[in-house]
Amino acid sequence: MKAARLHDYAEGRLRLDEVATPTVTGPHDVIVRIGGAGVCRTDLHVIESVWKETLQPRLPYTLGHENAGWVEEIGSAVTTVRPGDAVILHPLVTCGVCAGCRRGEDMYCANSSFPGLNADGGFAEYIRTNERAVIRLAEHLEPREVAPFADAGITAYRAVKKAASQLTAGTRCVVIGAGGLGHIGIQCLKALCPAEVVVVDTSDEALKLAEELGADHTVDATDDPVAQVRDLSGGAGVEAVIDFVGEHGTTEQGPAMLTQGGTYYVVGYGGRVDLAALQIIFNEINVVGNLVGNYTELCELMALAAAGKVRLHTQYYSLDQVNEALDDLSRGRVRGRAVLVP
Amino acid sequence: MKAARLHDYAEGRLRLDEVATPTVTGPHDVIVRIGGAGVCRTDLHVIESVWKETLQPRLPYTLGHENAGWVEEIGSAVTTVRPGDAVILHPLVTCGVCAGCRRGEDMYCANSSFPGLNADGGFAEYIRTNERAVIRLAEHLEPREVAPFADAGITAYRAVKKAASQLTAGTRCVVIGAGGLGHIGIQCLKALCPAEVVVVDTSDEALKLAEELGADHTVDATDDPVAQVRDLSGGAGVEAVIDFVGEHGTTEQGPAMLTQGGTYYVVGYGGRVDLAALQIIFNEINVVGNLVGNYTELCELMALAAAGKVRLHTQYYSLDQVNEALDDLSRGRVRGRAVLVP
Amino acid sequence: MKAARLHDYAEGRLRLDEVATPTVTGPHDVIVRIGGAGVCRTDLHVIESVWKETLQPRLPYTLGHENAGWVEEIGSAVTTVRPGDAVILHPLVTCGVCAGCRRGEDMYCANSSFPGLNADGGFAEYIRTNERAVIRLAEHLEPREVAPFADAGITAYRAVKKAASQLTAGTRCVVIGAGGLGHIGIQCLKALCPAEVVVVDTSDEALKLAEELGADHTVDATDDPVAQVRDLSGGAGVEAVIDFVGEHGTTEQGPAMLTQGGTYYVVGYGGRVDLAALQIIFNEINVVGNLVGNYTELCELMALAAAGKVRLHTQYYSLDQVNEALDDLSRGRVRGRAVLVP
Amino acid sequence: MKAARLHDYAEGRLRLDEVATPTVTGPHDVIVRIGGAGVCRTDLHVIESVWKETLQPRLPYTLGHENAGWVEEIGSAVTTVRPGDAVILHPLVTCGVCAGCRRGEDMYCANSSFPGLNADGGFAEYIRTNERAVIRLAEHLEPREVAPFADAGITAYRAVKKAASQLTAGTRCVVIGAGGLGHIGIQCLKALCPAEVVVVDTSDEALKLAEELGADHTVDATDDPVAQVRDLSGGAGVEAVIDFVGEHGTTEQGPAMLTQGGTYYVVGYGGRVDLAALQIIFNEINVVGNLVGNYTELCELMALAAAGKVRLHTQYYSLDQVNEALDDLSRGRVRGRAVLVP
Repeated sequence: MKAARLHDYAEGRLRLDEVATPTVTGPHDVIVRIGGAGVCRTDLHVIESVWKETLQPRLPYTLGHENAGWVEEIGSAVTTVRPGDAVILHPLVTCGVCAGCRRGEDMYCANSSFPGLNADGGFAEYIRTNERAVIRLAEHLEPREVAPFADAGITAYRAVKKAASQLTAGTRCVVIGAGGLGHIGIQCLKALCPAEVVVVDTSDEALKLAEELGADHTVDATDDPVAQVRDLSGGAGVEAVIDFVGEHGTTEQGPAMLTQGGTYYVVGYGGRVDLAALQIIFNEINVVGNLVGNYTELCELMALAAAGKVRLHTQYYSLDQVNEALDDLSRGRVRGRAVLVP
Repeated sequence: MKAARLHDYAEGRLRLDEVATPTVTGPHDVIVRIGGAGVCRTDLHVIESVWKETLQPRLPYTLGHENAGWVEEIGSAVTTVRPGDAVILHPLVTCGVCAGCRRGEDMYCANSSFPGLNADGGFAEYIRTNERAVIRLAEHLEPREVAPFADAGITAYRAVKKAASQLTAGTRCVVIGAGGLGHIGIQCLKALCPAEVVVVDTSDEALKLAEELGADHTVDATDDPVAQVRDLSGGAGVEAVIDFVGEHGTTEQGPAMLTQGGTYYVVGYGGRVDLAALQIIFNEINVVGNLVGNYTELCELMALAAAGKVRLHTQYYSLDQVNEALDDLSRGRVRGRAVLVP
Repeated sequence: MKAARLHDYAEGRLRLDEVATPTVTGPHDVIVRIGGAGVCRTDLHVIESVWKETLQPRLPYTLGHENAGWVEEIGSAVTTVRPGDAVILHPLVTCGVCAGCRRGEDMYCANSSFPGLNADGGFAEYIRTNERAVIRLAEHLEPREVAPFADAGITAYRAVKKAASQLTAGTRCVVIGAGGLGHIGIQCLKALCPAEVVVVDTSDEALKLAEELGADHTVDATDDPVAQVRDLSGGAGVEAVIDFVGEHGTTEQGPAMLTQGGTYYVVGYGGRVDLAALQIIFNEINVVGNLVGNYTELCELMALAAAGKVRLHTQYYSLDQVNEALDDLSRGRVRGRAVLVP
Repeated sequence: MKAARLHDYAEGRLRLDEVATPTVTGPHDVIVRIGGAGVCRTDLHVIESVWKETLQPRLPYTLGHENAGWVEEIGSAVTTVRPGDAVILHPLVTCGVCAGCRRGEDMYCANSSFPGLNADGGFAEYIRTNERAVIRLAEHLEPREVAPFADAGITAYRAVKKAASQLTAGTRCVVIGAGGLGHIGIQCLKALCPAEVVVVDTSDEALKLAEELGADHTVDATDDPVAQVRDLSGGAGVEAVIDFVGEHGTTEQGPAMLTQGGTYYVVGYGGRVDLAALQIIFNEINVVGNLVGNYTELCELMALAAAGKVRLHTQYYSLDQVNEALDDLSRGRVRGRAVLVP
């Protein structure tokens, strides 16, 4: 089959190789024919060798960690899906028996692999995962339409779900960044809670999209966003800030927008969160980190997608165009989310 | 001023009396000019002497416990409202210093009065309450439009808020009864959580209203509603049932609609909840009682109303028509909620 | 190997048979050499054919659902235990891939078996379970000392954990029944929360044991326990009641002991919970059902056991004495919990 | 009456003045005869003018914000206490009608005063507070024994209560600093949850006290405490860290001790919490700020004190010795907590 693989960090791009199609090797294995594979900023970082030391993948290997498609073949012990089923893949392949898995937090699995990061991913015609990673799609959902929910989607959803549990009627939530994750996060917020949603971004186009998706207020981030948010909340500040950017000053602005007892949710990264202990205490604020969501959360997000409450803006590329897609993403030419279709 | 008072249970109706206008007697008193006073099934029960023993009100007294209007006069210590402010009244007049008040649960106040039930209520031109009961209205809200939120509204809201905290995407909530409380409850559910809302009622008209308000499914209660709900949920049952009826068989049907781990919220009353301990355990179900909401919950509900997320269907009567309104309510002739306007 | 099996409900007892030792048949199977198997009132009910219809076990089969021992043999995919490890067994053998398993609630597994109830259990020298059921014991814990935690223990623990999450300092929790489950529940309450523990039982001996285990007050159930509990709480009632009996009047007494907003936890069964909807609402009380706990909860309980915070009172019998043990249990001659040791 | 007042920041000490005894001026006022007034590090900071700008108190005024005593006189509307009642005082005097007060969070009161910080405090024979601040003591508790619970106590309690709600059996909680607040926090942890308590301090004496109070492990902070804590938890890190120091490197060490999903509770201040967003996300950790507790929390803490579960180590001084007490505190000569007794 065809697969887009990284051979050498120095090349700065993927090669389209002919490789062996993966086969079932264990009782819980599932082979999936790719219907769509999301292209993510993390793919750029992998190629730039940012994750080289942390993940130590063996080159060459296939990228692609936002995958959906159809079940092709199943291991002897698999009972929950059959060949032909349309599925989305949780990004981790987990063991099911460690403490993390047992409390339902797949991301804490002590024995996981992460196809596309440290194993062969979905920029290919087929991928191998296991039964614990697959979720059957509602009938009217197409794999390529939903693939980016597999990682970008549940990361946004998990943060929003934590925030929504605290956001009663009459509260406000700021979303910093209305891009790939943020445009999902805004829709999830509107679906999960009654808080007013205030979106902060530097791009007029992003703010316009935010409004279409239901944002109650938009704030131009280039013009003292902290002051604008404080004004919107009558001076008091807001109950929650979800930061999908996490750099370029947002890690200072976010906490400064909070009212007493408020919470700053960190999703984007790159910057530092640097606060005086006195400020943390005096305003009694919280800082909450957010990882990719668990399997149950991906099921919940797919229920929102099936109900039409969360929609992705996607732009399709063929597998052959993988380097073009990566290039477009890198240059800010992708509207919403790029998806490779083999 | 004019006031509609109960003189004698045997009369079965209220008399329109000329009485002294209430005045400020304590530092926290607030006199409110009534803009609207909701007429509630409880008023019928009071006149029928159902509450005579429990509440022991001194006759004659003025009914009316769903009140909104404008502040007329304030006590010396009042700081949060001024004469002229449009306000809605939490139904209880509470002390603020007992254990119940201190944790924010006004309904548990050990020293409360309940105007309209055991003190003079709002079927009059003016009412006396205290500062702890008043909430200022958003500018575009009219007292008479919102009065029924004061009791029917927060009772529905409190139950929905408890349920919503457990209802993730992909779950279902059954609402039994789409009448006065139920039609508020449906809107609150849609505003607070992503669950599919299934409405069960015996009336076609009520089910039609439910659909207009956003119900995802409606079920005719006259045709084995338990089986219909089970079918809708693929046989498994639903995660939550909110019962706004509480009699005529609903207390059996409600628990029977639940999936394992599900919860039955009791709001309406009249019937009995009678379950084998074995059924409670084997399905691990919960039964949750619901009282009128607290002050903070009424603030939250008014935020939903101000945002246009919850609307009341009201039918106005003049204060002189109080017995006509009660009669209409008793005969099922009121669409939504009857409100007296002095 | 030897196994105590039920051949015929009419016999009213188990036969000690020589049967084939179980072997590994699937990749996740684990064969455990039994160190101790708790004898439970449910075993009596099984023999009395109470569960015949519900569970439909194929006779003859081996009873025993509270098992601990040493790993004897493991399937090819097992990674978390090795032969020789001392383990306790969660009572269910679960699939790990259904919705219940995925959120960590093993008891909701859609594909489970329950050895000792609908498959061969632990009244034998060996038992077959799977990797998802086994928990390694802390070094100083002996299998036979802890076996009854496997079912009686986590059932009590799960109910207590739910209650403890609501029980702040200054609150009170009533425990009805200080027998097999209750004596574990009392210790768990003392370990998990600061509430005053009030124990209600008909037996002086049980109340004496309760005091030794840390009960703050004991109440003789034969002398108007509702009045006594109300007196202890200054008339107001208590925040929580955990009912380990669930029959003989306790299902009426329990709810009647509650203060406004309080919760009645149902663990024992046999009776009915029959309450007027009005009472549920007016006091805003809750009724919470409790099933056996999940795997994570058994891990938590074993941590309490390892720390010496919860101890079992056990009485040992050899496997040959199984009918004697059942007979003693039936006649109330067992102090604490009977355990078979092969 | 006598009162120890600050006249001039330049003096660096308090003057013992003869001033007018406070009297009832409003309907909810309560005059309390001081039985004991805790001396706190914050008093040193006030005298050093650290709070001058933030609080802008009018000099001269009386310090002392940890007060207990006996009710001397009550306003016309006061119903919950009578002259002669032994009481402890919540440190804030709150309005009861703002949004913060209404949800039970007195510290968020928009109209509060804080006697001892921005109004006359308890280093005197009498103090004026209001009904919302007073809690009656259990019969066997003496005001001077409990005074420091009023501020140091509920600050520690509030942080511990938040942590305890997440700490199941088998988890670990690190307490950094076993001094004035920490020695209360350790006892509260043992009372509220089953977590193993690991205490980190630089002082051998403090660690010895921690052990007496129930710490499961103690760690010498001068010898790589992060590594020691990681060793104690098998390398994984701990679920919670409560930092009562908040400076001198603890704000770096605390977060570094956490396992994935763990939480760092900030109580002490002086330093900065400076974390890479990547670290926050990758370990999915949380940072939680903690203010002084609310009235309900002080009630809960007094229930623990009444039950003998939390005890203060106190050292008494007469009111005349106020500057000696401050001096001892400043020089580290106070064991536990200094209390002035008029």
